Amino acid sequence: MFRTAELQRKLPKEDYHQQVPQLREELLLMQMELRKADFPVVVVFAGVDGAGKSETVNKLHEWMDSRWLVARAFGEPSDEERDRPEYWRYWRELPPRGRMALFLSSWYSMPILDHVYGHIGLAEFDERLERIKNFEKTLADDGALILKFWMHLSKDAQKERLRKLEKNPLLHWRISKRDWQHWELYEQFIGAAERTLMKTSTGLAPWKIVEGYDERYRSVAVATIIRDAIRFRLDEPKTPAAGGNGDARGSKPAADAAGLPPVTVLSQLDSGKSLEKEVYNEKLKHYQARLNQLQRAARERKISTILVFEGWDAAGKGGSIRRITAALDARDYQVIQIAAPTDEEAAHNYLWRFWRHIPRAGRVTIYDRSWYGRVLVERIEGFARTREWQRAYGEINDFEAQLVERGIVLMKFWLHITAEEQLRRFQEREQIAYKAWKLTDEDWRNRERWGDYELAVNDMVERTSTRQAPWMLIEANDKRHARIEVLRTLCQRLEAALAGGPQNP
Amino acid sequence: MFRTAELQRKLPKEDYHQQVPQLREELLLMQMELRKADFPVVVVFAGVDGAGKSETVNKLHEWMDSRWLVARAFGEPSDEERDRPEYWRYWRELPPRGRMALFLSSWYSMPILDHVYGHIGLAEFDERLERIKNFEKTLADDGALILKFWMHLSKDAQKERLRKLEKNPLLHWRISKRDWQHWELYEQFIGAAERTLMKTSTGLAPWKIVEGYDERYRSVAVATIIRDAIRFRLDEPKTPAAGGNGDARGSKPAADAAGLPPVTVLSQLDSGKSLEKEVYNEKLKHYQARLNQLQRAARERKISTILVFEGWDAAGKGGSIRRITAALDARDYQVIQIAAPTDEEAAHNYLWRFWRHIPRAGRVTIYDRSWYGRVLVERIEGFARTREWQRAYGEINDFEAQLVERGIVLMKFWLHITAEEQLRRFQEREQIAYKAWKLTDEDWRNRERWGDYELAVNDMVERTSTRQAPWMLIEANDKRHARIEVLRTLCQRLEAALAGGPQNP
Repeated sequence: MFRTAELQRKLPKEDYHQQVPQLREELLLMQMELRKADFPVVVVFAGVDGAGKSETVNKLHEWMDSRWLVARAFGEPSDEERDRPEYWRYWRELPPRGRMALFLSSWYSMPILDHVYGHIGLAEFDERLERIKNFEKTLADDGALILKFWMHLSKDAQKERLRKLEKNPLLHWRISKRDWQHWELYEQFIGAAERTLMKTSTGLAPWKIVEGYDERYRSVAVATIIRDAIRFRLDEPKTPAAGGNGDARGSKPAADAAGLPPVTVLSQLDSGKSLEKEVYNEKLKHYQARLNQLQRAARERKISTILVFEGWDAAGKGGSIRRITAALDARDYQVIQIAAPTDEEAAHNYLWRFWRHIPRAGRVTIYDRSWYGRVLVERIEGFARTREWQRAYGEINDFEAQLVERGIVLMKFWLHITAEEQLRRFQEREQIAYKAWKLTDEDWRNRERWGDYELAVNDMVERTSTRQAPWMLIEANDKRHARIEVLRTLCQRLEAALAGGPQNP
Repeated sequence: MFRTAELQRKLPKEDYHQQVPQLREELLLMQMELRKADFPVVVVFAGVDGAGKSETVNKLHEWMDSRWLVARAFGEPSDEERDRPEYWRYWRELPPRGRMALFLSSWYSMPILDHVYGHIGLAEFDERLERIKNFEKTLADDGALILKFWMHLSKDAQKERLRKLEKNPLLHWRISKRDWQHWELYEQFIGAAERTLMKTSTGLAPWKIVEGYDERYRSVAVATIIRDAIRFRLDEPKTPAAGGNGDARGSKPAADAAGLPPVTVLSQLDSGKSLEKEVYNEKLKHYQARLNQLQRAARERKISTILVFEGWDAAGKGGSIRRITAALDARDYQVIQIAAPTDEEAAHNYLWRFWRHIPRAGRVTIYDRSWYGRVLVERIEGFARTREWQRAYGEINDFEAQLVERGIVLMKFWLHITAEEQLRRFQEREQIAYKAWKLTDEDWRNRERWGDYELAVNDMVERTSTRQAPWMLIEANDKRHARIEVLRTLCQRLEAALAGGPQNP
């Protein structure tokens, strides 16, 4: 695979000085256009030590307008990073649309090194490469242009390069013992690299192998590939989206195939359950005390919790959340209200703003509405294109799998009320001055599409209720019943997690 | 001081139920208006344990629209927080304009507890209260509405409250040993509290003492004070700014008092210094190798570095920065290019976006342009009001003092070129295609105001070149000379820091 990158290609000085001015100009012009474009550019550098990865990044900074260019290198994770799923640190640093980021020692480093050092076998190595593929696919599907450079040197060339650096009294600091250790492992390293490139070179995120032997050659080669790839994307005619924005036909859930009125998971719920006030008060105190105890234990054990609340308008999400937070230490939790995204958030993949708020080990994040907006309101109202909300199920499952793998207790509540009960609550809100603000025209509009939403919820539950992260469908016509159910299942789940269920490695 | 808050005041149930609906309605209406207002609201809760701080925060969440309300409580600092100046965590969590944040166990907790436990004497306690005052003044001067509640209980009432909680089998978890320890220290605690309230109750950030004995009373009292304070601010007629936006007269630096042409620090610089290419190449390698070594040692010793680059357009900031970063491990540094703020940044105090990027222990942040924009371009172009840029000197000194106290090596470089040299570089840029992008109309406009800028730079150096954070005025007519000077002084400073200079506690 790397044979063609062991040719010791050199770019003569004269050719270099002839090519570079025009290349720089084109890069800069392209960069100016990119700023107005609706996609980000992610450039990954990996490869053999000494093949000039960081030198190339420096060169790009020199040639381009560095205000719109960001380089990120990843060393040992910080404590805050270690407390969260592995990819949290990468999500944090993703560039917004119109910007370009250069990643060094990125998501490829650890899997390759872990495999070379023998910490993980082939099966786990493949799994981690699969995770990378999913990650890059999520970004690329959302429009990100992904370029990956493998900077290569032959074993002899690497030795030569390391020796040369080592002998230079002014540059020998660049070479550490670790570099020589890696050199010893050259064959294993190349083996792992080949597998990596084969498995993760996709149409959406292809690898380019660049020979790192000659500085002039590799700089011009990388810059040219970047220029051409971005230029190509910028000049691409905008194809009308498969489903089109706001394509109601595509997003409208289909009725039952047999033409019968559809039966959804929601229509199966019993809406008659209720609780007497006295029973409620007693149970509330009981479960809150229990929850407090469990959360303190979970904090001790560094088990984090993520709670997702979705449900019909006026189903009582806020009230349920407050019954939970009242039992917790204010330092342990945060409630994230999902409203309109900030411009920074809107410039990123839709999952970015949820990744941001993943709790540290031992803490709780409660999302009041969540990433499921993608397959509910965005689907129904046509804010997301058909292909966007359709692929969201897979993206969400992958996201949640990472949370669960990290040992996070993830619970998803759908608070269900009947259409009649919603109407009653809307009318009540209209009557009571301090509740009227809660009721908007949008609520009435959403209500008109109750059937569509019900089918969308059904699809959502069908496709994202996994064993590890099941949906809890809570009958909420009676608020007291709903609140206790939420608390009860939460306590139950935390107990299981503390007892060391499978979801907590 | 607290006598009036030991009256065991109660709000009868009937009065409560009569008052609350209207109060809620007014709070909500006010909140809706606040969203469009140009100031944030910061509410601090402190006081005696058991006086209902977190219960009150919960109550406010219930009564108000929690989408526009954020509560933040601070426990033990995380590792990332510990790596940075104490106030970093508070700056991170400040609300943007139009939002409201409730702070529990905030910047008051540690100073008071440290004093009560005898970890710090009166002098240091006072210093830390002074820091608080400066912090709050910076926020208030920028328009933040600050409300601080001291929730009080008498010693007997506290005992009663703790006992009551303890006896309740469902609520006893709320009481820890620590609470009783604090109760034992009640007198010391109240002494420290009195001093705190006396020293930090300013017109811009006043304390309100609220008796915490009765839940209904304290909830209504706090909510009423919040409502009234925000309402008052919302209804305040907008006074025309003292200097007015874009008030050029106010911002134009005055000439020498005696009518002589002003002599500035910049006019004292020798612009003739230069370096031969060979000497330069050798020195460059030398200092880069040295810098690499020093930074690795600094990382080991957890000494962080912040470099600020300011200077005339085309003075060579970018080139100097690249000569530094080329010597560093990409995982150790970040370069922050200061461009137009994002909307999130623009909605905060101008210092907020610089606080964001303060490096972890052992890392380097390089600011390409910085907070000094406030007293340079914002002053000259009238983007900041006269009183805003005038008070910025003090705010900046206070900010930098916190960095230096934390042991951060802070260096500020002004790259100086003469007007003639700038013209030469501008003309050169016009000629070379790949440099032309660097030259904008704004550069030519700035050039016309050279004299104004020179005086502003002079004021800046005069007022912000402190012993701990001096300005390095670098003669940069010769790029090679400038780059070596920057590297040389940086190495020198790091060496001093590693030798344990006074700036590294």
